[in-house]
Amino acid sequence: MIKVGVVGGTGYTGVELLRLLAQHPDVSLEVITSRSETGVLVSDMFPNLRGHIDLAFTEPDVDALANCDLVFFATPNGVAMKLVPDLLEKGVKVIDLAADFRLKSEADWTKWYGMPHACPELLSEAVYGLPEMNRKLIAGARLVANPGCYPTSVQLGYAPLLKHGLIDATDLIADCKSGISGAGRAASVVNLQAESSESVKAYAVAGHRHRPEIVQGLQAFNIDVGLTFVPHLMPMIRGIHSTLYASLLDISVDLQALYEKHYKNEPFVDVMSAGSTPETRSVKGSNMCRIALYRLEDQPQDRNKVIVLSVIDNLLKGAAGQAIQNMNIMFNVEETKGIESIAILP
Amino acid sequence: MIKVGVVGGTGYTGVELLRLLAQHPDVSLEVITSRSETGVLVSDMFPNLRGHIDLAFTEPDVDALANCDLVFFATPNGVAMKLVPDLLEKGVKVIDLAADFRLKSEADWTKWYGMPHACPELLSEAVYGLPEMNRKLIAGARLVANPGCYPTSVQLGYAPLLKHGLIDATDLIADCKSGISGAGRAASVVNLQAESSESVKAYAVAGHRHRPEIVQGLQAFNIDVGLTFVPHLMPMIRGIHSTLYASLLDISVDLQALYEKHYKNEPFVDVMSAGSTPETRSVKGSNMCRIALYRLEDQPQDRNKVIVLSVIDNLLKGAAGQAIQNMNIMFNVEETKGIESIAILP
Amino acid sequence: MIKVGVVGGTGYTGVELLRLLAQHPDVSLEVITSRSETGVLVSDMFPNLRGHIDLAFTEPDVDALANCDLVFFATPNGVAMKLVPDLLEKGVKVIDLAADFRLKSEADWTKWYGMPHACPELLSEAVYGLPEMNRKLIAGARLVANPGCYPTSVQLGYAPLLKHGLIDATDLIADCKSGISGAGRAASVVNLQAESSESVKAYAVAGHRHRPEIVQGLQAFNIDVGLTFVPHLMPMIRGIHSTLYASLLDISVDLQALYEKHYKNEPFVDVMSAGSTPETRSVKGSNMCRIALYRLEDQPQDRNKVIVLSVIDNLLKGAAGQAIQNMNIMFNVEETKGIESIAILP
Amino acid sequence: MIKVGVVGGTGYTGVELLRLLAQHPDVSLEVITSRSETGVLVSDMFPNLRGHIDLAFTEPDVDALANCDLVFFATPNGVAMKLVPDLLEKGVKVIDLAADFRLKSEADWTKWYGMPHACPELLSEAVYGLPEMNRKLIAGARLVANPGCYPTSVQLGYAPLLKHGLIDATDLIADCKSGISGAGRAASVVNLQAESSESVKAYAVAGHRHRPEIVQGLQAFNIDVGLTFVPHLMPMIRGIHSTLYASLLDISVDLQALYEKHYKNEPFVDVMSAGSTPETRSVKGSNMCRIALYRLEDQPQDRNKVIVLSVIDNLLKGAAGQAIQNMNIMFNVEETKGIESIAILP
Repeated sequence: MIKVGVVGGTGYTGVELLRLLAQHPDVSLEVITSRSETGVLVSDMFPNLRGHIDLAFTEPDVDALANCDLVFFATPNGVAMKLVPDLLEKGVKVIDLAADFRLKSEADWTKWYGMPHACPELLSEAVYGLPEMNRKLIAGARLVANPGCYPTSVQLGYAPLLKHGLIDATDLIADCKSGISGAGRAASVVNLQAESSESVKAYAVAGHRHRPEIVQGLQAFNIDVGLTFVPHLMPMIRGIHSTLYASLLDISVDLQALYEKHYKNEPFVDVMSAGSTPETRSVKGSNMCRIALYRLEDQPQDRNKVIVLSVIDNLLKGAAGQAIQNMNIMFNVEETKGIESIAILP
Repeated sequence: MIKVGVVGGTGYTGVELLRLLAQHPDVSLEVITSRSETGVLVSDMFPNLRGHIDLAFTEPDVDALANCDLVFFATPNGVAMKLVPDLLEKGVKVIDLAADFRLKSEADWTKWYGMPHACPELLSEAVYGLPEMNRKLIAGARLVANPGCYPTSVQLGYAPLLKHGLIDATDLIADCKSGISGAGRAASVVNLQAESSESVKAYAVAGHRHRPEIVQGLQAFNIDVGLTFVPHLMPMIRGIHSTLYASLLDISVDLQALYEKHYKNEPFVDVMSAGSTPETRSVKGSNMCRIALYRLEDQPQDRNKVIVLSVIDNLLKGAAGQAIQNMNIMFNVEETKGIESIAILP
Repeated sequence: MIKVGVVGGTGYTGVELLRLLAQHPDVSLEVITSRSETGVLVSDMFPNLRGHIDLAFTEPDVDALANCDLVFFATPNGVAMKLVPDLLEKGVKVIDLAADFRLKSEADWTKWYGMPHACPELLSEAVYGLPEMNRKLIAGARLVANPGCYPTSVQLGYAPLLKHGLIDATDLIADCKSGISGAGRAASVVNLQAESSESVKAYAVAGHRHRPEIVQGLQAFNIDVGLTFVPHLMPMIRGIHSTLYASLLDISVDLQALYEKHYKNEPFVDVMSAGSTPETRSVKGSNMCRIALYRLEDQPQDRNKVIVLSVIDNLLKGAAGQAIQNMNIMFNVEETKGIESIAILP
Repeated sequence: MIKVGVVGGTGYTGVELLRLLAQHPDVSLEVITSRSETGVLVSDMFPNLRGHIDLAFTEPDVDALANCDLVFFATPNGVAMKLVPDLLEKGVKVIDLAADFRLKSEADWTKWYGMPHACPELLSEAVYGLPEMNRKLIAGARLVANPGCYPTSVQLGYAPLLKHGLIDATDLIADCKSGISGAGRAASVVNLQAESSESVKAYAVAGHRHRPEIVQGLQAFNIDVGLTFVPHLMPMIRGIHSTLYASLLDISVDLQALYEKHYKNEPFVDVMSAGSTPETRSVKGSNMCRIALYRLEDQPQDRNKVIVLSVIDNLLKGAAGQAIQNMNIMFNVEETKGIESIAILP
């Protein structure tokens, strides 16, 4: 049994992580900390967990967490970096679901997250936890930075094209649509149902924190990346739909076959048949990423456009599910264990 | 391994049943039949099942079904009754998720379902599959009539009060609210998202088929039952919320304690703490029924009113989940196996 | 032109009131006050009003308001009562959309609203602004208490039955369903889209402030009223659906004809044809109340049950629309002016 | 009074048109025809129209329609073209809300709509009814082709940039998001609430009929247009959000000022202040198009990207509202009459 602690856990990423951990056969959930909710039963905050988790939130405490094999951080940005050095020193492994260790450049982190980094010396050690790109590094990591939701769907969508140098990487356009759970569980006016349901809007058009994360990830293919990234809020709870545009440099390649081969052995990436349009509901509650691709041929000038559609559940493959996947890899457990659930439909 | 066949399976009850069967460790899914969809891959109709079920729908065929230990019918009303006698004769057990075997009275069945019954001789043998009331009978049954969604939530809500004779059974009022998946997956105008979302309405006020089913179930407590039942459609996909009203005959009883004791050993009924208001989302994707109760005391004449709130997921405890629960009981498998999933929240 | 001021106006009732006032041909909107939003352009807070209202919110100020013929209060409970005496003294008429003047009993008000009343001497003078019951009094009033949303739908539904003494008034059951805009525009967790959409729940079962308001209103028919009132939150933005139950004392009356006659001359009450089930969307964005009624006859004991279905848009007939209707009556303007809009469908 | 007839009118475009016509002070609604619904009261099909329209649907009949000054077609594609020549000959003006007269090229029409055109000789006469581009032609037209919903939002978004030759017109990308009412009111499985709500998907990625319409419209600026157009379905009823991408040829221009000047006198185009993100709900129920624009400057290679956000209500400015606007222009009525309604929020 993997002894697991969770720091934070009062947001949507947190409750999803707790749901998955409570059902994982190899996990013993030891401690859940929350400064704001100390003393509250987890199941009083999240009634779906009644009968499954009987822990109460406790004060964050490094010594208590040090008894764990692994600690997940499901906290706001800037919290994990203050505790992680101590935990690593005590031999505890860490998966951070926030952004503290996602960017390799300290300067970029400070710019986008608006604060100095508390342990920049760990940025290079931290492994970016996208198993489809970094599986081996994750297996040996002490510290995994769990990717953001948009970055997961965008990188999985572009990766085969970039790996083979098939598109103009300097002019990528990612038009991404996210369900409202991506906006978090904090009290707010703009995310009230009466405000956000029955409406669509773009946001953070001038600059979103996930953009540098995506660019860094795609530059792993040794290319210069120019990315236009526009996130939108959709009137639904869960799901991300990324519509990815690029110009093909080589139109002779069978892209469908390329994608199918690239992801053949990946348990959580499903390349759909040609002509499909993946719906976000087809992955709701599951850790799958479903991908479809199109080459437009209506007019001569369209011949060089490729469009990739990539959908995930932002709380599973985009957050807590991927964190469990990373845990399984780090602890040499079967990679799919505890996250095999089929999407719920309807 | 229980060899299982499914007849029908192209509706919402069907896809939910298939999702649960595909994940059940003791089940081998042998055949899925659908006259209208013969030859279609199940996973082409329901993309969430891609990678989990590779069967195609086949023509309904008694001989093929006869190789199964158990056949589920997830068909429109009136289909199962034509095939069940042959299957039983061949030693196959049956769970019917439609209404063919729910009513004991042939006359009532004909009245409410608008056709003669094809095998009325089986009506008395069929066991009404509400485990909390009929567990022992289910264990020994060849033929189980899986309850309707409204009847499950209403009977579980009223049962403790009626068992102990605490309320006036001749004046029950059940105001029930259902998500739109309860209306089925057939093409229709009234259930289009542009019609039914962002609106609430009552329907079938003058008479709904689930009313005689509820009355029959409650009369098991050897009482005359008078029930006013008004179903409503809610703008959400899953969930039933039953608000149950009754007049107390004895106001000295501690109802909270009574309910907690009554359901203490039930794995799928959760009596919430006093003052709670169960949300349907707290059971979304799970087989739980959550119940809370109130006695009003604002004014003297309120002293005798009891209100029970009962929520289920109509596709789980109200249909496919309960069917799996019945299967487990019939085949002496641990009752919770394959239906332990925690509700998905948010 | 009626010179109008608005105090508050930053909530949903407020923006709806502003939308209606901006389009009313006889209204000149002079001033909008909000302590918290002073200096903010109304159209920056509510983008739908861009190009229609160019005022900014200003500090609440009695002298500025005193230049108006009429001041609406769209404030939290307890604000209007502090300013109303001064305004009335200066000859300004007032319509309060909050609850400050709805209850005649000072003790009840203090009990339900948790604070002493600032001007109890005005409680008897204030006219309860339900035009279908109090039109003449409204016409001569200085101070109108605009009814709550639930009370409007419930009173209009029960009124014909109670006026003619046809039902047992001591055992009324009102099961009411409201859209989420009824919960207001304040930042909160429970009303986030990710929390409240795709779910249904009851709330305030043990006691809701609208219950004494309804009881007081129904007692106008000189009867003792016993009311069980359970409000529920629906996953939609606008609309209230009240399902009203009662036992008939006289089953010989043609209820359909009775209702049609009772409301024949009412411009904003539509008695639908027998067998109809009104949808909340049929009144979305309109000031109409639509009503249908049923007498159950399935079993002998049902003969005496009557069910009334009553739907309104909680922000129109349940708040701002009714306030405009009251204004029209008070200022001798055609009663329907400015609130004739047809419901938006779909 | 303009004597108006409506052919069709049983879909969402139709009911919206009827709602607007019923409230238009200069319109006398004479006849509504529908082959499938002959004899049905309009208000029985659309309960929001109860009390506002007392006509019944009648058989389509050219002679009855010939008494009108203007006939709207709110029919499926391919219906109007069969009746329009007769009506024009009889001196009746026509606005077609379907696609029969939108494309100038008969070959294109046949290719995209899958049938021969019944009166290709009228294609050149028909005026494309986008007032912001063709106001003068509309004023003198006998036959107006009302634009599609996507084309309206996309053309209004790109027009100022193309008019001034500021972008590379051969590489436009329009990522468009539409509410489900755009999919129509026909019975279907895929548009059931249980299917389409709580999910997002792209559709018609390989080719959508609105693409040639947009290209034709933008080519009015005497340029070659290359357009990648991907429509998506959103889980909401009304609204279109178009996110438009282009590469700037000249980065020295003040785009915000350019747009504000371009649309300064347009009553139904609102250029929002810099940094805004228009929400579709800000135009729900109104005829407005709201536009915001961004130039990305995060990295050097972004300097040349411009992003335009354009939102409309697909049933108003994208269909029935624009049709009324065209009628007003054709009959020399104030252009905004009958379509001044403020968007409903929340």
